[in-house]
Amino acid sequence: MNNAIQPLSVSQLLSPSTVAVIGASEDQGKFGGRALHMLMRHRYAGSIYPINPNREQLFGLKAYPSVADTPEPPELAIMAVPQAQVKDRVRECAARGVRCAIIITARFSDAGEEGAAIERELVEIARAGGMRLIGPNCLGLISPANNLVLCSSPALDIDTLPRSPIGFATQSGALMGTLFDRAVAMGIGFSHCVSVGNQADLELCDFIEFLIEDPATRVICSYIEGVKSPARFVQLARRARAAGKPWLAVKAGRTAAGAGAAFSHTASLAGDYAVLKAVCDRENVVLLDDVFAMLLLAASMARHPGHKVDQAVLVSTSGGSAALTADALSDAEIPMTSFSEPTRAQLATLYVPGQADNPVDLFGAKVVEVPDFAYQSALLPMRDVHADVCLSVITTAPNLAGIATGLSRGCAEAGKPILQVMQPGALANDAREALRKTGEPFTDSAAEAVEAIRAWRAWSAYRERVVDEPAPKISIELPAGAVSLGEEESKALLRQAGIPVNEGVVVDGIEQALVHAEEIGYPLVAKIVSPQIVHKTEVGGVALNLRNRTELNDALLAMKTRVAEAMPQAHIEGFFLQRMVTGTVELLVGARHDAQFGPMVVIGSGGVLVELMKDVILLPLPVSRQAAMDALLSLRIAPLLRGYRGAQPLDVDSAADVVMRFAAIAECLKGRDFEIEVNPLKMDIEGCVAVDARARIGEVVP
Amino acid sequence: MNNAIQPLSVSQLLSPSTVAVIGASEDQGKFGGRALHMLMRHRYAGSIYPINPNREQLFGLKAYPSVADTPEPPELAIMAVPQAQVKDRVRECAARGVRCAIIITARFSDAGEEGAAIERELVEIARAGGMRLIGPNCLGLISPANNLVLCSSPALDIDTLPRSPIGFATQSGALMGTLFDRAVAMGIGFSHCVSVGNQADLELCDFIEFLIEDPATRVICSYIEGVKSPARFVQLARRARAAGKPWLAVKAGRTAAGAGAAFSHTASLAGDYAVLKAVCDRENVVLLDDVFAMLLLAASMARHPGHKVDQAVLVSTSGGSAALTADALSDAEIPMTSFSEPTRAQLATLYVPGQADNPVDLFGAKVVEVPDFAYQSALLPMRDVHADVCLSVITTAPNLAGIATGLSRGCAEAGKPILQVMQPGALANDAREALRKTGEPFTDSAAEAVEAIRAWRAWSAYRERVVDEPAPKISIELPAGAVSLGEEESKALLRQAGIPVNEGVVVDGIEQALVHAEEIGYPLVAKIVSPQIVHKTEVGGVALNLRNRTELNDALLAMKTRVAEAMPQAHIEGFFLQRMVTGTVELLVGARHDAQFGPMVVIGSGGVLVELMKDVILLPLPVSRQAAMDALLSLRIAPLLRGYRGAQPLDVDSAADVVMRFAAIAECLKGRDFEIEVNPLKMDIEGCVAVDARARIGEVVP
Repeated sequence: MNNAIQPLSVSQLLSPSTVAVIGASEDQGKFGGRALHMLMRHRYAGSIYPINPNREQLFGLKAYPSVADTPEPPELAIMAVPQAQVKDRVRECAARGVRCAIIITARFSDAGEEGAAIERELVEIARAGGMRLIGPNCLGLISPANNLVLCSSPALDIDTLPRSPIGFATQSGALMGTLFDRAVAMGIGFSHCVSVGNQADLELCDFIEFLIEDPATRVICSYIEGVKSPARFVQLARRARAAGKPWLAVKAGRTAAGAGAAFSHTASLAGDYAVLKAVCDRENVVLLDDVFAMLLLAASMARHPGHKVDQAVLVSTSGGSAALTADALSDAEIPMTSFSEPTRAQLATLYVPGQADNPVDLFGAKVVEVPDFAYQSALLPMRDVHADVCLSVITTAPNLAGIATGLSRGCAEAGKPILQVMQPGALANDAREALRKTGEPFTDSAAEAVEAIRAWRAWSAYRERVVDEPAPKISIELPAGAVSLGEEESKALLRQAGIPVNEGVVVDGIEQALVHAEEIGYPLVAKIVSPQIVHKTEVGGVALNLRNRTELNDALLAMKTRVAEAMPQAHIEGFFLQRMVTGTVELLVGARHDAQFGPMVVIGSGGVLVELMKDVILLPLPVSRQAAMDALLSLRIAPLLRGYRGAQPLDVDSAADVVMRFAAIAECLKGRDFEIEVNPLKMDIEGCVAVDARARIGEVVP
Repeated sequence: MNNAIQPLSVSQLLSPSTVAVIGASEDQGKFGGRALHMLMRHRYAGSIYPINPNREQLFGLKAYPSVADTPEPPELAIMAVPQAQVKDRVRECAARGVRCAIIITARFSDAGEEGAAIERELVEIARAGGMRLIGPNCLGLISPANNLVLCSSPALDIDTLPRSPIGFATQSGALMGTLFDRAVAMGIGFSHCVSVGNQADLELCDFIEFLIEDPATRVICSYIEGVKSPARFVQLARRARAAGKPWLAVKAGRTAAGAGAAFSHTASLAGDYAVLKAVCDRENVVLLDDVFAMLLLAASMARHPGHKVDQAVLVSTSGGSAALTADALSDAEIPMTSFSEPTRAQLATLYVPGQADNPVDLFGAKVVEVPDFAYQSALLPMRDVHADVCLSVITTAPNLAGIATGLSRGCAEAGKPILQVMQPGALANDAREALRKTGEPFTDSAAEAVEAIRAWRAWSAYRERVVDEPAPKISIELPAGAVSLGEEESKALLRQAGIPVNEGVVVDGIEQALVHAEEIGYPLVAKIVSPQIVHKTEVGGVALNLRNRTELNDALLAMKTRVAEAMPQAHIEGFFLQRMVTGTVELLVGARHDAQFGPMVVIGSGGVLVELMKDVILLPLPVSRQAAMDALLSLRIAPLLRGYRGAQPLDVDSAADVVMRFAAIAECLKGRDFEIEVNPLKMDIEGCVAVDARARIGEVVP
């Protein structure tokens, strides 16, 4: 077993025939006591070897001083020993031929460089012995599909391990226990849950891969703080899609402020979360902002494999709750089904006039005879072809259990999913218990249910992207080393890529400017030229709409003074003169290297709107022409592109061409750290033109 | 008692010494059975007269055939009789001298005009008899402060009525029962809850007024679908402030789409919800989007009267939950306390290095000894002067009850509020029960807690507005009847009000245009003049930046053709020529009559950004200069006003002057239906100018 070359995969590890609990005890105040208890309580079918040098027996099982002393090498070992002892225990495990060690103990890479060094040693020891590691700093795993519990969470103090075809891999151990406990309260369970901790060896992607292959898993949930292997993440997303398994994810650190003063807007707009979100959107990994909404959605998806959701039917026992929930659906841009005539006619038999509509007010029924009126009130509307999901909001009323199960039955008969929201306190406990028994997902929070439906719609709306048109062939000369390019040099690069730029001329002073101005033609734009100045506007280094000789002369004089005051250290090389372009709409188009996911194209509202509108879309490579067009027409500023209030539509095709050429530039720069940005790209009825540009091309990335 | 002139107030009604239950029975399947049972169960101290012509006794109480037969006139009567019998029963009550009748029965004004007519009759009958009505179509009231329950909600099937100094007036009966049941689960209660139903006589404001005066009430909650008496609403908000009682409100119908194609943007931007929100902001009625968040906030405010909240401390048993909740706080723009050095030093004694920070990770404590580490983990950070509220997020861990109560004790000792979030399922039930006993508010939803803190901050940040400067004296000539004013007439009105407008000249054809153009000077703007055309851009009736004779000539020719094609029925009277104004930023400034709250001034991003940015602020009259400046500088577009990226700041003072003059116009137009709008108001470094305008001045409002 030692010195195995091919590391064992997760599926080879999660059904061990023997398990050692290192530091086992009977003390339920200690991890080793609780872990041993939970393992036995949930009837693990293999052999258990408690490791404790001071005891003969624990809970009636023979105890062993060390893993070296067990009758056979344990396939799996779990330990929560003091940090200082971990290395020795790991070495013993590796020497004994243990296949995988789960290290609960914390204070390794989570506590600084010293711990990280020890963590690296642990991995070396394990690798040398052909052993895999889970953790350290994790809470172990709960694998109901294998009757295997290697976790001390008090949430496991239950009689039976609930199973559902939902897998969960998480970077937070506490959230594993918490989600598990919530699931139990809902009457649902998991196939496998694993807390990956510091991911010293086995990491989130290893478990995602396992869940994709695992026949007991139909929906994959994940809680992500950072992605360790981005390329594999993307590849696994594709495999999950191919396997027909939805992959849901909650990402923490969504709002972390981006890197302060960035070189270009492209960098600050395309921060880590934005990039991950773009990648997830592209690959249909569905991001949610709440782990409980994720659980609710997973439970419902698991009951309705492959079901797609667009429009919702809202059923409520209260007009007030229906109105508030309708507001929440509208905020989440979830359309409510507008019933077809036959549906309306059927509802009219059941409801008093004026009430046969969406939202369905249960107490608008002519005869309130529980549970049949609830069953009918779900069945009739959910048979409508445009009714994709039922959202019920239950308030205080008599016989809530009858209402809830009636609604469930109606939806089941219509073959459509229902998410039930229980708004009362204890009064709804009977209803909760009734649903718990059926495994029909429910929650106390309407917001969670709305977030689940929003995410379900996003998952349903996914289309596989096809690259419909190869990236344009371009040939650009790249600088060998790291450089920052000013406006003119950046434009030269863009010109090589076939992107239309607003040509201009560099002059060394006012006299030369006045001569060249006649050739270019008024009105003119003048900009300062200085290697020290990147953000020209901010130092007063830009003058627009200079209509004649006098205005040009005065503007250049004033500019010199202003810039000298604002940045006395800057060396002024001259002025850049251009014809004034009067396109009505300004875009930003950029590209950058993301340290995790590689090159991205960035498009957004440009000019002064960049920061005001936060209107930006990221496109990972490769970019199809359709994706470029879709992205441009999905911007918040898109109405202006389409021809706003009777204006002529702008040339979106030419902007898409610029986006494609940016993708081509990004392709050329693959492997290097870079940012390149046009802002603004002025759009017109015919064509568009890059009016200002900047670029930073860095070294080859390791 | 009959023919009393002065109607009785709510406080005279809510502590009756005698109550009649009309249609009383012992059948718990019927309203009259449940209502009688609840009234007795909760030990109402006065006399109860069950009214039932077919029974001698009910639950041991003597029953009477009619209210006419009771030993004395009942002060209060409640009925849920069939709709057809309501009028007779109300007449009997009025004749007998009942002070107030509560009508549960529905299908009056809630079911159309026929029912509305009967409802008006009920009010007439009641008024004639000096009797007040609650409802119809309500669920009655729950008044723990008076041991008075006139409500059949199954939520009342509990042993004791929990009391807290929280009043609740609601337009949804089901939400009354639901909130009550949730409150019970939280261990809190109410002073009085009332469901106002159709508000035929007594309405929401009557109960708000009562709660303001009621010594048992400290915080007022309300659920609002529409405001019946807007002026009184505003007046009561002021009285609530004066009484030091926070007034919280949830409004349904927030997202209802505005009136389709409006005459001006001012009308569509300032829809019903926006107006109510502006009024509430002005008067510090705190709007929340969730009734349970409202309850949580009320419970916490009731425990900490007058406490103001700005910064939050986040304490959690899980790094993952802390990270997700920090994201939610950031979304809600709630700052997290940056601990002072002394706080950090104290925390460092308790926590391992690197963990003594906000959010506080409970399991970063050096010694995890429940409940003391939890107590210390709340006490130390909450003593920080910038720690205003503690938000704890509890996940699965051993001894959650000890942790929750420890945190409570720590905050109590620091004298600061804590909102606790219980994320597990049943595992947190002991902790919930422990908090329930202490009445410390908690919820299962982090989103609810964050929304409560957001609202608490909004309430805390309120400043009483002072009118620092009288509205400018203006004198404008108003049309006698209803008129729509085109650009030139609207500008004439603005000019009278002292608002700078971009002057121009109307010409009847191209030849005359070419002559006048020389006087005005190029570049020019030309616009079509036609009484049928309001939105000129949409029919191609505007040409910008015409730089010379040729361009003007060509543009007018093309415009004629375009407009004739787009609107063949429009009569073209000529062209309006103006100098092209090149201000960089465009605002919208408008004013309108709101049917409920009277005149409002509206400001926002103008030009093409109006609909893209949805950047609008409403100012109810009177408008102070400070409020005008604050509003302008609170727009999303404000960075452009302040001098964006090194540009010179624009003349916000002059824009504030325009806003004040709009307020003066609105003052002049008070009592008439009107909309008047400048869009765009072009802003420059010095001054600003109204470039386009329109107005509609309607009839005197009834």
